[in-house]
Amino acid sequence: MDHIIIGGVAGGMSAATRLRRLDEDAHITVIERSGHVSFANCGLPYHVGGVIEDRESLLLQTPASLGRRFGLDVRVGTEAVRIDRARRVVVVRELATGAESELPYDHLLLSPGARPVRPPIPGIERALSLRDIEDTDALVAASGPARTAVIIGGGFIGLELAENLTHRGIAVTVVEAAGQVMAPLDPEMVAPVHDHLRASGVTLRLGTSVTAIGPDTVTLSTGDQAEHVEHVDADLVVAAVGVRPDTRLADDAGLRTGPRGGILVDSRFRTSDPRILAVGDAVEKRDALDGEQVLVPLANTANRQGRMAADVMAGLPAHDRPVLGTAIVGVFGLQVATTGWNEKRLVAAGRPHRVIHTHPASHATYYPGAEGMSLKLLVDHDTDAILGAQSVGRDGVDKRIDVIATAMAGGITASALADLELAYAPQFASAKDPVNMLGYVADNLRSGVTRSIQWHELDDALVDGAVLVDVRTRQEHEAGAIPGARLIPVDELRQRLEEIPAGPVVVHCAVGQRGHTAAQVLTHAGREVRNLDGGYRTWLAGTSARERVPAG
Amino acid sequence: MDHIIIGGVAGGMSAATRLRRLDEDAHITVIERSGHVSFANCGLPYHVGGVIEDRESLLLQTPASLGRRFGLDVRVGTEAVRIDRARRVVVVRELATGAESELPYDHLLLSPGARPVRPPIPGIERALSLRDIEDTDALVAASGPARTAVIIGGGFIGLELAENLTHRGIAVTVVEAAGQVMAPLDPEMVAPVHDHLRASGVTLRLGTSVTAIGPDTVTLSTGDQAEHVEHVDADLVVAAVGVRPDTRLADDAGLRTGPRGGILVDSRFRTSDPRILAVGDAVEKRDALDGEQVLVPLANTANRQGRMAADVMAGLPAHDRPVLGTAIVGVFGLQVATTGWNEKRLVAAGRPHRVIHTHPASHATYYPGAEGMSLKLLVDHDTDAILGAQSVGRDGVDKRIDVIATAMAGGITASALADLELAYAPQFASAKDPVNMLGYVADNLRSGVTRSIQWHELDDALVDGAVLVDVRTRQEHEAGAIPGARLIPVDELRQRLEEIPAGPVVVHCAVGQRGHTAAQVLTHAGREVRNLDGGYRTWLAGTSARERVPAG
Repeated sequence: MDHIIIGGVAGGMSAATRLRRLDEDAHITVIERSGHVSFANCGLPYHVGGVIEDRESLLLQTPASLGRRFGLDVRVGTEAVRIDRARRVVVVRELATGAESELPYDHLLLSPGARPVRPPIPGIERALSLRDIEDTDALVAASGPARTAVIIGGGFIGLELAENLTHRGIAVTVVEAAGQVMAPLDPEMVAPVHDHLRASGVTLRLGTSVTAIGPDTVTLSTGDQAEHVEHVDADLVVAAVGVRPDTRLADDAGLRTGPRGGILVDSRFRTSDPRILAVGDAVEKRDALDGEQVLVPLANTANRQGRMAADVMAGLPAHDRPVLGTAIVGVFGLQVATTGWNEKRLVAAGRPHRVIHTHPASHATYYPGAEGMSLKLLVDHDTDAILGAQSVGRDGVDKRIDVIATAMAGGITASALADLELAYAPQFASAKDPVNMLGYVADNLRSGVTRSIQWHELDDALVDGAVLVDVRTRQEHEAGAIPGARLIPVDELRQRLEEIPAGPVVVHCAVGQRGHTAAQVLTHAGREVRNLDGGYRTWLAGTSARERVPAG
Repeated sequence: MDHIIIGGVAGGMSAATRLRRLDEDAHITVIERSGHVSFANCGLPYHVGGVIEDRESLLLQTPASLGRRFGLDVRVGTEAVRIDRARRVVVVRELATGAESELPYDHLLLSPGARPVRPPIPGIERALSLRDIEDTDALVAASGPARTAVIIGGGFIGLELAENLTHRGIAVTVVEAAGQVMAPLDPEMVAPVHDHLRASGVTLRLGTSVTAIGPDTVTLSTGDQAEHVEHVDADLVVAAVGVRPDTRLADDAGLRTGPRGGILVDSRFRTSDPRILAVGDAVEKRDALDGEQVLVPLANTANRQGRMAADVMAGLPAHDRPVLGTAIVGVFGLQVATTGWNEKRLVAAGRPHRVIHTHPASHATYYPGAEGMSLKLLVDHDTDAILGAQSVGRDGVDKRIDVIATAMAGGITASALADLELAYAPQFASAKDPVNMLGYVADNLRSGVTRSIQWHELDDALVDGAVLVDVRTRQEHEAGAIPGARLIPVDELRQRLEEIPAGPVVVHCAVGQRGHTAAQVLTHAGREVRNLDGGYRTWLAGTSARERVPAG
């Protein structure tokens, strides 16, 4: 059997090595356009910053090592020019010589990945991107003499590069057309990320577009009417506005693509030509929550798909799974992670849901080194199913998102998070882990023990006549309070019930916990009461995020 | 309603505060024998070592603060003397004055916890234990002048104290009657813990008993015939041989206890008297795997049960869940965690199972700071269900065990661990997370793609005529090899197949990964082959553990 794999990173290389282990006799050829296969593409930004000092450590395998270990015929610097489906051959070209040849296949696997989007801005040819080792070398070379850099795009790669270029002593400006960086986060969750980026020395320009790139500056435009036009220094310009499935070969071969612009495959990774499979960032996946076609360009998914495609090619009964899209990024020591859907997407889809914000510590606060984090859980209103989660903090964020992603995969409801038996000692967690606490809150909301109100619903409630009671201490209240809140510390509440005017009440504390106790006291006193979800901290993050976003 | 709660830590205090939030009108009395409630019992060893400097930080709440916040009537230094079930009163005694009084109840919740076992050794009265703040104060006082300490028992508390007394500059000997510390671990998994304890300066005496405690020494006896008797210096002696449910009150009141010696409760925490509930370390739980009665004295379980018991007392439909028993301990920077059953228990129960050992890195090895870990997964032979897991390493152990415990709770099979979408960036994980890799191995075993052999099965296989092939590099082989192994590096295997004599083959590498590739090559060459699970590293840990354990 002749198997050809186009693309020698992540999905492609996982497929090639798995295929060899399943079929010792097959002839397996890997075609890679760049000069390297099996390189650590998620490590590239960190080599730019010098965190990963040794360039060689990014090159996990070479064509020679893969030949020895797995008997693979790996051809780097070789482009797949076109697929002749009728004759089942791939035409390949050695880039160094231009020599073309034909390779026959029984099965062909496409794992070409995604290409960085190049926005149509005058001067864009000066902007660098980051996709492979060659791009990395170019960025390292260009950042040596650079003193200023503009990064267009505040996604994962943009922020990783912002950190790494800052590490090199370069003054970095991140320009993001949306009102926030990291689109997978909801605005109140991204607010601490904005603060942290700024505190780390990054200039953030939100709601701002790059309209032109000059020889040593870029031109920015902020606002709807392009009123504010300015020029900022940019020795170095990086385009990191996202990626797009690389479908050139598939398109030319007449393979079907899907509604999101990725190669369309079935649950066994077969394209519209069953002899041709495709995996990774180039293909559309099925969303775990609504079954729709989605693009999820993540390394873990690509690796998983590559391995399963090899199983399919070897005749094993592998089937793809729908994707949640769990992801994490480190931003100057801050951990930012998400899984599943965010609130923006649930609102847009009209899906009834509950929202829970908490601000727990990474481990028992009495043990040294505990760090605060913010957690957000999205819950199906009718079924109590977990729909998504987001977390930001300095420690333990990866663990909590992984646990929640696993709970989602296992069909564990939000309330049942309270039952999870998670490893506890004071340096690792709390006896009631932050994930357990989400379950407690979810159960209280589901069962009607308590009612909550979201930060963005507060204004309307106050307009409608609700009384806002701050149940924190006087000291906390005086350090910063929500306009209109009257202070009654929770420990005095039972004695001061009569001070609260008639009508609906909203209570709040710093994070929601004392507010819950206060809400219970007031409920038993016959009052209609809601607890401000996530407390003052979530309200402050949400409203400050709203203020910073320009009207457009 | 009058609710009385006996025991003011973990389960008891979780119940009291939850009960107040559910019932503002109830009269809730908490009876606590020691001088403190709601203290951080899992933090006590770290105050002994000075890691938690401030004693006050262990006292999370006081009777006064609980009175103000939750309207609780909290009585410390007060002992529940007996329960008069017929009259529904508890007789309590103020320890300071000896004054007794009767408190009536509608519901009584017992959360008395567990007591440290005091082994019947001559001189045991000199040994300290660690259960509450008073014990902690005594240990801090005694450890000030101490230069040597003997800790009897190598369980969680014993090891935490070994670390903390060492931090204070005390020469610590841990004496453990079994052949290993930390009974929840299997022997090959505990071997690195033993090594690390010794490297950290702790003297480990395994398979050894304390037969007498003198004024400044203890007498040790090693081996079956008590042949080796010796005396070791011990300014300080700590008994940490385990805990036993505190059932005195329950026994005196004629409440039923179970086969494990804990208070017997139903799934709604009701004892044999439905007016009396019980939770926490004092009660027996139901095991998640076989439904049998078990003792699981863990803080997270106690907290969870306390809260649910409050729901029951308030008339809500709460039901207890069976327990897995997830636990973690830090040992001089090493993280040691377990969930579910270990192999010893599966073997004893005769339950058919598969075993998987891996030795992954905590995150991508090309990113600085990656730490090695050992992982063990136990899988049901017939259903592919996950039965348990163990892990030891310097980083990321808590995360992996939490994910696996969550997968078990969600009914995710071992093979399906490969499908989990876990947060990946190179500083947090690998594109194929260690948990995903367990899934890949499990799937290969389940589907028959590969066969493995365990470290303790190797001798028999060799006696039966199997050929052992080491597929590592010459350098690795010469640094340490399994007796009888012949070296054929995996990259040369295809060319040297004829060097392997006829008959069954066992291949091994360092951790199992190259061995898997080699096994596939040999299988396709028509050989009967098994891959040594966990490779040389697991074999070395297992055999060295076996050698160190005295015959008895």
